[in-house]
Amino acid sequence: MNKKAVVLYSGGLDSTTCLAIARSEGFEPYALSFDYGQRHRYELQLARTAAPHAGAVEHRIVQIDLRQFGGSALTTDLAVPRDRSVDSEIPVTYVPARNTVFLSFALAWAEVIGAADIFIGVNARDYSGYPDCRPEFIAAFEAMANLATRAAVAGASLRIHAPLQYLTKAQIVRRGLELNVDYALTLSCYDPTPQGLSCGHCDSCQLRLKGFAEAGAVDPIFYVDGENL
Amino acid sequence: MNKKAVVLYSGGLDSTTCLAIARSEGFEPYALSFDYGQRHRYELQLARTAAPHAGAVEHRIVQIDLRQFGGSALTTDLAVPRDRSVDSEIPVTYVPARNTVFLSFALAWAEVIGAADIFIGVNARDYSGYPDCRPEFIAAFEAMANLATRAAVAGASLRIHAPLQYLTKAQIVRRGLELNVDYALTLSCYDPTPQGLSCGHCDSCQLRLKGFAEAGAVDPIFYVDGENL
Repeated sequence: MNKKAVVLYSGGLDSTTCLAIARSEGFEPYALSFDYGQRHRYELQLARTAAPHAGAVEHRIVQIDLRQFGGSALTTDLAVPRDRSVDSEIPVTYVPARNTVFLSFALAWAEVIGAADIFIGVNARDYSGYPDCRPEFIAAFEAMANLATRAAVAGASLRIHAPLQYLTKAQIVRRGLELNVDYALTLSCYDPTPQGLSCGHCDSCQLRLKGFAEAGAVDPIFYVDGENL
Repeated sequence: MNKKAVVLYSGGLDSTTCLAIARSEGFEPYALSFDYGQRHRYELQLARTAAPHAGAVEHRIVQIDLRQFGGSALTTDLAVPRDRSVDSEIPVTYVPARNTVFLSFALAWAEVIGAADIFIGVNARDYSGYPDCRPEFIAAFEAMANLATRAAVAGASLRIHAPLQYLTKAQIVRRGLELNVDYALTLSCYDPTPQGLSCGHCDSCQLRLKGFAEAGAVDPIFYVDGENL
């Protein structure tokens, strides 16, 4: 019998690849998405459609209201930066404590379904400089989680898997293609059109396009300025 | 100028005392409550009324949907136990990963308002055996939080204060009375009547009544079976 794992799943390139990796390692993926007032709402619609195709045995979308705290371009009226050079500076698209909040909900669901494994598609190489994507953060969350739950008290140990952590975007794309991930059903853009076309200019689009280019593969999704720009 | 602190605040005896302690230590309390589908909805109504009286400079109620995960008598149709002997076994009123989720939101708000301090009224003595009330859990959360945020990257250090951690319920009541906490505006019951009368028999009522009795004080709230039973 396969083991259950909660997989944080946004419907983007990274989390979809992460879900495929969880499956390839013999886990039954329980996909968890968040409606956190993100401006890129099309992402959630797509996630709902794509989750079963990606192999999720269940998919939940949890509503959380991070908007009332403000502080991020992804949940407020701040402009999403275009053609920013992706460096180590933390951009305005950072959502305060987002991965901490997301992993906390994953921990709650894991406890209820009896899963001892959580997958998160964070990446410490081609990433946007978010503090809660760093390996030391993931390790600290795991240590905390192992003190937080009824299962932990009973001696079970919970593991946070971050299989993309040390991969480049190109390596992630290559790994996903090996696992037959259908990237046509993924979306990475922070600022897509209402029809779901990607802008091609936000941090996330830039990283995605660079990843496909370096992997020597064609990105099957559509961009505002024409396919693959 | 006072320093800002986020205070987890349910409107109960512990968190109200905790808020008073934060004020007494020179903090401006930003009170944070959660609407997590708890059956004791009267608690939130009371919290809304009581927060300014308790000295909160702001009060937010965040909606989160822990119900869709199930697993607790506080958010599902499981019966709340009555007259249970309060021992070290984890009861059905335990909500999976609750304090992890609550502290994660507190961390998000703290980051947005620029607070470096979070107060939580957990208690490791007269408590219900919840794993996420233990000092080692709080310490692990603090360690994780210090890696999670933009402020952490900038070198700021965040502190989780749990001033009730080593106090008995009687000591909590005494400390609160010294600080002029109005316990008439607090509610602890897991299963109050729609009018807000406390049942007197759930774990939380039992601990509260024992606390007031041992402190030699009168609990000013009303119980179903008559004042102070």
